[in-house]
Amino acid sequence: MTEYYTPTDVILGKDAVSKCSEMLKKAGAGNVLIHYGSERVIKNGLMETITKQLDDCGIIYTLLGGAQPNPRLSLVRKGIEIGREKNVDFLLAVGGGSAIDSAKAMAYGLYDNGDVWDFYTGARKPEGALPIGVVLTLAATGSEMSDSSVITNEDGGLKRGCNSNYCRPRFALLDPTLTYTVPPYQTSCGTADIMMHTLERFFHSGKSLALTDSLSIALLKSVIENGLKALQNPEDYDARANLMWASSLSHNGLMQTGNEQRGDWACHQMEHELSGMYDVAHGAGLTAIWGSWARHVYMEDSERFAMLGEGVFGLKRTSDPDRDAMQTIKAMESCFTALHMPINLKELGLEPTDEEIDTLAEKATFFGKRTLGAFQILDKQDILDIYTAARG
Amino acid sequence: MTEYYTPTDVILGKDAVSKCSEMLKKAGAGNVLIHYGSERVIKNGLMETITKQLDDCGIIYTLLGGAQPNPRLSLVRKGIEIGREKNVDFLLAVGGGSAIDSAKAMAYGLYDNGDVWDFYTGARKPEGALPIGVVLTLAATGSEMSDSSVITNEDGGLKRGCNSNYCRPRFALLDPTLTYTVPPYQTSCGTADIMMHTLERFFHSGKSLALTDSLSIALLKSVIENGLKALQNPEDYDARANLMWASSLSHNGLMQTGNEQRGDWACHQMEHELSGMYDVAHGAGLTAIWGSWARHVYMEDSERFAMLGEGVFGLKRTSDPDRDAMQTIKAMESCFTALHMPINLKELGLEPTDEEIDTLAEKATFFGKRTLGAFQILDKQDILDIYTAARG
Repeated sequence: MTEYYTPTDVILGKDAVSKCSEMLKKAGAGNVLIHYGSERVIKNGLMETITKQLDDCGIIYTLLGGAQPNPRLSLVRKGIEIGREKNVDFLLAVGGGSAIDSAKAMAYGLYDNGDVWDFYTGARKPEGALPIGVVLTLAATGSEMSDSSVITNEDGGLKRGCNSNYCRPRFALLDPTLTYTVPPYQTSCGTADIMMHTLERFFHSGKSLALTDSLSIALLKSVIENGLKALQNPEDYDARANLMWASSLSHNGLMQTGNEQRGDWACHQMEHELSGMYDVAHGAGLTAIWGSWARHVYMEDSERFAMLGEGVFGLKRTSDPDRDAMQTIKAMESCFTALHMPINLKELGLEPTDEEIDTLAEKATFFGKRTLGAFQILDKQDILDIYTAARG
Repeated sequence: MTEYYTPTDVILGKDAVSKCSEMLKKAGAGNVLIHYGSERVIKNGLMETITKQLDDCGIIYTLLGGAQPNPRLSLVRKGIEIGREKNVDFLLAVGGGSAIDSAKAMAYGLYDNGDVWDFYTGARKPEGALPIGVVLTLAATGSEMSDSSVITNEDGGLKRGCNSNYCRPRFALLDPTLTYTVPPYQTSCGTADIMMHTLERFFHSGKSLALTDSLSIALLKSVIENGLKALQNPEDYDARANLMWASSLSHNGLMQTGNEQRGDWACHQMEHELSGMYDVAHGAGLTAIWGSWARHVYMEDSERFAMLGEGVFGLKRTSDPDRDAMQTIKAMESCFTALHMPINLKELGLEPTDEEIDTLAEKATFFGKRTLGAFQILDKQDILDIYTAARG
């Protein structure tokens, strides 16, 4: 049995932000903590567009900026403190995945009396969260519809995720024109992140629903095509709109519905350690590892890799599925390269020592407490091998 | 701007029904009107599986059967009366689109003090509805996630729809094995209905989101393939699972997200008059009209028909999009034929007189008060021409 539960009310299109106060009122918000990342949203007037609507309908609010890539626990704690003090009843994230994930963590914390980090270490499970809304300015993480948030604890550089339906946003306003000014590198990283959310789900060891496979392949083709277009012309409305909607669909659960397993996620978990330790961009960290992961595991089911290559890249099948799988991996890496994304750690700008690689693997296994992956179960030695192969 | 709002919590897989009482409790149900169609759900033990769960957790309930294809207003009124008398707070539909649409109408009526038919004539708009849950036994209408319900008023044979987010079910339990016993004709009609929900959305006169086009084409291919498989082997779990999930995705809004228009819907509206007057199966009524509609309108944008044929049937494009469009129409009709569905009214078993065709067209235009369609706007003469061409 799988669940598809996406209660987020999505508005997609130019001027989606004009619906902000209507959506807030529908959700019963009266006292909102508006959390954002970059000051760009202040400078470009987006925040004023939002706060004017709130002023007009008597919703009070407090602004809190500063969310950064790999959002920090310390800021989450600060947000919870402010939220308590101001007695807020709603979290509005204005930004990309960092602002949204950070707001989600605040929403958990404000609903609870204990330490919010407990939900990320797995020590406790959340039992609720303050309602959340999103004004999206970056097509990438899909956090605008997802049940997940990922937070980095500066103390130890630990990046950990927490998943629950409580943090699925009530609404998400998706105006593609807000992403026109996203710089090329972030556009590339976002495109890679969207692709990886679908790829992680595509690879699992159980049986898939054929319809879900078909939708995944259609989505991947579209993301690659539109990612390249957006790099070429940042103000290509259609490209930005396709990417934005794909970001939501890649991570809202659609691409795993009917599958026996929720996906592999080893690359994500290995990347979390990378960006926890080195603060690299998530999307770039993922593509830097994927090829090495794929070469390590493809023999488990080379047929599935071959099918992906045929569907996404139109590769001709041969009588040798192992060879077809390798062709798929190479084609995917060429695609990452075309998107200006790294395909190994060196290209990512990292040259970890043996000792550092050992630390990464230790942390990825929660210090020996877990294995990674589903397509192939990875123990510490597998993880060491993959990080090592990824050096480039 | 388009909205994608699908709050329905879907459980897909064998034994999805085991989640029934959990879902009802989560939705706050305490006193449930269980509405069903065929007595088959009693005889095969499904109802007992459900009521036992409710007994075990102290949820009280009343059973009301009798929903039939093209569900009747009289039964809706009866359900509202019983619901008032018993003071129910939740509607649980057990069945296919007829039971769900009928339950949705009861849910509107029980929330309101006036005449429920007003919502279907458009005289008033619903302002709420009792919450609804679904145990699905037929992959077809997609009503399990949709915002629509269609009711037939026996007085005048008027079949009318009402759309609002209030009637989107809180949950839908989708167990593909419950559709093993669906007879071949209903399996065919269901497959056709699913296809048409996507086709109606694919054809509109505005700009489309390319990702939505790609997902639509992937879905159509999957539905055709799995419809044929389910006909060949009614107990093919995968085929039934793909069809069931496709039924929800075809009608929950996904296949129109980001498109400038919500779709054409002329075939649906013309079919509503057919089944209102002759009580034919909805899916069969749709395929009996589609080809004649398509030949009447394709010149508006033959490129779009050609693109559909290339994507769904792998048809090679030529330099002549009109010719490609005609090839697409023929391929779609061949596909309907392979699914044992009619491609004209004669094959549907109808031989309407000129007078009857005039009445159909009159009713389709709400007696001169509306035009149909979006891909091409159809007036009464167009509608007459299409019905006439559809005679076969």
